[in-house]
Amino acid sequence: MLSADDVRAREIPDPVLREPTDAVVQVVRSRVCGSDLHPYHSLPASAEGAEGAEGAEGKTMGHEFIGVVWDVGAEVASLRPGDFVIAPFAWSDNTCEFCREGLHTSCAHPQANFWDGLPDEGGQAEAVRVPLADGTLVKLPVTADSALIPSLLTLSDVFGTGYHAAVMGGVNERTRVTVIGDGAVGLLAVMSAKRLGAEQIILMGRHQTRTDLGREFGATDVVAARGEEGIEAVRELTGGHGTHVVLEAVGHMPAYAQALGIVRPGGVISRVGVPQYEEAPVGFGSLFGPNIRLAGGPAPVRAYIEELMPDILNGSIEPGKVFDATTDLDGVPAGYQDMADRKSLKVLVTP
Amino acid sequence: MLSADDVRAREIPDPVLREPTDAVVQVVRSRVCGSDLHPYHSLPASAEGAEGAEGAEGKTMGHEFIGVVWDVGAEVASLRPGDFVIAPFAWSDNTCEFCREGLHTSCAHPQANFWDGLPDEGGQAEAVRVPLADGTLVKLPVTADSALIPSLLTLSDVFGTGYHAAVMGGVNERTRVTVIGDGAVGLLAVMSAKRLGAEQIILMGRHQTRTDLGREFGATDVVAARGEEGIEAVRELTGGHGTHVVLEAVGHMPAYAQALGIVRPGGVISRVGVPQYEEAPVGFGSLFGPNIRLAGGPAPVRAYIEELMPDILNGSIEPGKVFDATTDLDGVPAGYQDMADRKSLKVLVTP
Repeated sequence: MLSADDVRAREIPDPVLREPTDAVVQVVRSRVCGSDLHPYHSLPASAEGAEGAEGAEGKTMGHEFIGVVWDVGAEVASLRPGDFVIAPFAWSDNTCEFCREGLHTSCAHPQANFWDGLPDEGGQAEAVRVPLADGTLVKLPVTADSALIPSLLTLSDVFGTGYHAAVMGGVNERTRVTVIGDGAVGLLAVMSAKRLGAEQIILMGRHQTRTDLGREFGATDVVAARGEEGIEAVRELTGGHGTHVVLEAVGHMPAYAQALGIVRPGGVISRVGVPQYEEAPVGFGSLFGPNIRLAGGPAPVRAYIEELMPDILNGSIEPGKVFDATTDLDGVPAGYQDMADRKSLKVLVTP
Repeated sequence: MLSADDVRAREIPDPVLREPTDAVVQVVRSRVCGSDLHPYHSLPASAEGAEGAEGAEGKTMGHEFIGVVWDVGAEVASLRPGDFVIAPFAWSDNTCEFCREGLHTSCAHPQANFWDGLPDEGGQAEAVRVPLADGTLVKLPVTADSALIPSLLTLSDVFGTGYHAAVMGGVNERTRVTVIGDGAVGLLAVMSAKRLGAEQIILMGRHQTRTDLGREFGATDVVAARGEEGIEAVRELTGGHGTHVVLEAVGHMPAYAQALGIVRPGGVISRVGVPQYEEAPVGFGSLFGPNIRLAGGPAPVRAYIEELMPDILNGSIEPGKVFDATTDLDGVPAGYQDMADRKSLKVLVTP
């Protein structure tokens, strides 16, 4: 474990503490995410670059990372300089009524934040100011050179997001599940459905290296076809009725339409791909007639860290396999390009 | 109790048995429903007549009724002529995988039906052919002159529909609930939320005789305002955040928009008012961002009859209070008009 002295021995530039509840954290690992290419509120028209793989996943530019606490404000009670910590993409106080219900993305604290971020800070830097440090940061029981770091880093976003999809979908040992999207979130939604005991997990994706990893994570079937052909394939795999749960990890309208086609009457479409649309079919001919439910949203990943971490620590799961490339800060632009070009699934950043 | 002979002594016209699983039932009571004025698939543009009160409720022309079995097909095992029975608005075999899950409106049997009905039959007649009689009809442990008949009749549709809204909304003793719509379904959604233990039940409706009945059924607050003003009023009653559950018993787009405005982050909008729209907001700015879920659909009322009947039989609830007028068959057209004119909330039909 790095000691406080080790950390302070390095030159740390801005940022500095501003609020007594802040911490400043030196970043050890962060990652490049496809959705950083198109922040939420711009909803770009040309999102094809992400279609079928990443879509948008529910967080902003590099606010998720693993690092070492450099400094803490006067009101920070649970952390000290030198602590090795993970930061989820949303800041939350972890004490308000929404946080207590596990909905940290709706934290009622005025400093809570998950979509805008602060203009001068981000995890793809050497150090980051973290507001609401007591509520947001979680200590990690490993050292900075641990081989588990990539897997632990997925708790800051993509694993928690895939798990949120499965939880909101009500996955259990009696459910058949389809996952739409073979990006990191989709693959970790497969892992999550497996963890929750799903009896059948159909992964819809067209990139074989990814769907192969999906099979390793627990997919029982892979459907490469999309649209009507893909819907037909899923129906054939499920006795004609589709699956109880559809985990939609893309965010584009064709994925929504595909979900409608493969969800079983009475089932759930759980979305964690940030919708690149505002209106969608919900009437008698789509959701209402067959009593299909719609669930999901930005994942309160903070709520799942303690639950998921033990399985990573004991080696029973390895979600970090979704990282298939590493770069330093100078390589981040190329990392984005590689992901856009489908050369990389997910890029790990080591400042 | 009427005997088989009593029944056969009367002249029964068509219909007759067609399938060995049919029964023919002499109708004792049925009811007039606002949604009979606009069947599902026509989705009329001028639905204002129903706005804010009935909307459309999820069944076809008079297929719900209480009656006496007149004849049964060779394969009907559980019923005999003379049995006093209730018929829910949907026919189902009560044995397929969907029925076993309580989703009788999605019964997989080829004769199952809930929206089209048969062209020559309906509960607002003297006798009705009921397909899948074993699965559809439920015996009533009362006689035809019982004072409980009006309340029992609500099990065929409006009570089961209000209860479905509450069940799909996940109402329990920790939830605050808003009910949108003071028609029969809305009022019985209030009764259902009360039965499931909701700590606060806000009824949104503008007809005081109805909202007074809503208070009697368990509403803790009544909001007569609509739109932004109504949303503001509900927020004031709930500490600013809205209610965990919104039961939407109208079916028009303004009611959906109102539901979006008053549902708490992480909450559920449960719809049983048949949507008079197909597309609606579901993206980041409506459902997705605050993790709001959308649920509901045509109520599988058959699933709830056995659960709800005991409370009617022991007198602890009296859902039949929603009937505020009675007519014979000749009076049905006037009954529709009275409901359209808001003179009647719900009309009971005695052939």
